[in-house]
Amino acid sequence: MDPPGGSAAERADAARNRARLLEAAARLVAEHGAEHVTMREVAEVAGVGKGTLFRRFGDRDGLLLALLGEAEAEFQEAYTEGAPPLGPGAPPRDRLEAFGGALIERIAADADLGAALGRQVLHERRHASDTGRAFHQHVSNLLRETGVDGDHDMLAHALLAFATFETTDYLHTGCEVPVERLQATWVDLVRRTTQATI
Amino acid sequence: MDPPGGSAAERADAARNRARLLEAAARLVAEHGAEHVTMREVAEVAGVGKGTLFRRFGDRDGLLLALLGEAEAEFQEAYTEGAPPLGPGAPPRDRLEAFGGALIERIAADADLGAALGRQVLHERRHASDTGRAFHQHVSNLLRETGVDGDHDMLAHALLAFATFETTDYLHTGCEVPVERLQATWVDLVRRTTQATI
Repeated sequence: MDPPGGSAAERADAARNRARLLEAAARLVAEHGAEHVTMREVAEVAGVGKGTLFRRFGDRDGLLLALLGEAEAEFQEAYTEGAPPLGPGAPPRDRLEAFGGALIERIAADADLGAALGRQVLHERRHASDTGRAFHQHVSNLLRETGVDGDHDMLAHALLAFATFETTDYLHTGCEVPVERLQATWVDLVRRTTQATI
Repeated sequence: MDPPGGSAAERADAARNRARLLEAAARLVAEHGAEHVTMREVAEVAGVGKGTLFRRFGDRDGLLLALLGEAEAEFQEAYTEGAPPLGPGAPPRDRLEAFGGALIERIAADADLGAALGRQVLHERRHASDTGRAFHQHVSNLLRETGVDGDHDMLAHALLAFATFETTDYLHTGCEVPVERLQATWVDLVRRTTQATI
């Protein structure tokens, strides 16, 4: 987004503005909910011109997607490069259990930025987004690594269907099922799915 | 919804209006698709006042859910009283396999009225509807009947999460996964879920 020929000072300025805008947006999302955040407010809180905000992110969706990208980057790093059992180094079944547990915890955490933003995106777009695809690939790969027979791609979709906002919001918010019970169900599903079939 | 103290004539009138409104709604759904049906049109076609329509069904979702209930009655009869393996008489595991197979087949069938209507209703209300609850109760009961240990209620939610419109539409329409593969995955899930855990 930065003008390629800008001076070092201009580039530093642009980076500072970007960080300020994302920080302001994150704060407003946390305070008022993603659905109530306006471009005007973000620019005001960041102390940056509205023109700069639009130039940098295109529109409100662009800003929210950039924010989602930042929020997801941390989680993605944790499950691809972080400490076991979520990250590499633990047996694939333990990693699967940890992944779903972490995912459900994030979804159920009211303050989780990624979850709040994800809810603003239509199910189909979320599924087909980089994040949605990365989740599926991760679960599918781990299932394959456990050595269990089966249609790993479809089984990964089936496991993740339980951990989507649609299911967990209904159960956690709508039916008051505690997060711990949802997480225990995920672990149980993983165990049943990864044991040798008769 | 009827005034409890109404006369026999008033009750008969109310029942006639209800049937007319549902008939009109079903015709409009078949002709124009559920997403294009408006309350105004339904009232006009039925020759019933718009106020009566709203009083009886609350809102558009309420009307579509009532219509869904009628469309579902046939399917419900098949899995509660029909021939095995969908109906009673077969072992619970076979009935579970048949139930999901039938459910996925209906969801993937373009012409299925229940599926067309279900898609128009918000996920959360569909889950909490009589139909959604009946599906969950049925799967949960059959899981219990297989004698398998576990949190039957949550496992039933997990199995059904794979058979929701959100998941199957994404996979079948969005990713071109054949219905047979979705059905095979359901059967596989049921087998893994109902075998004794280690």
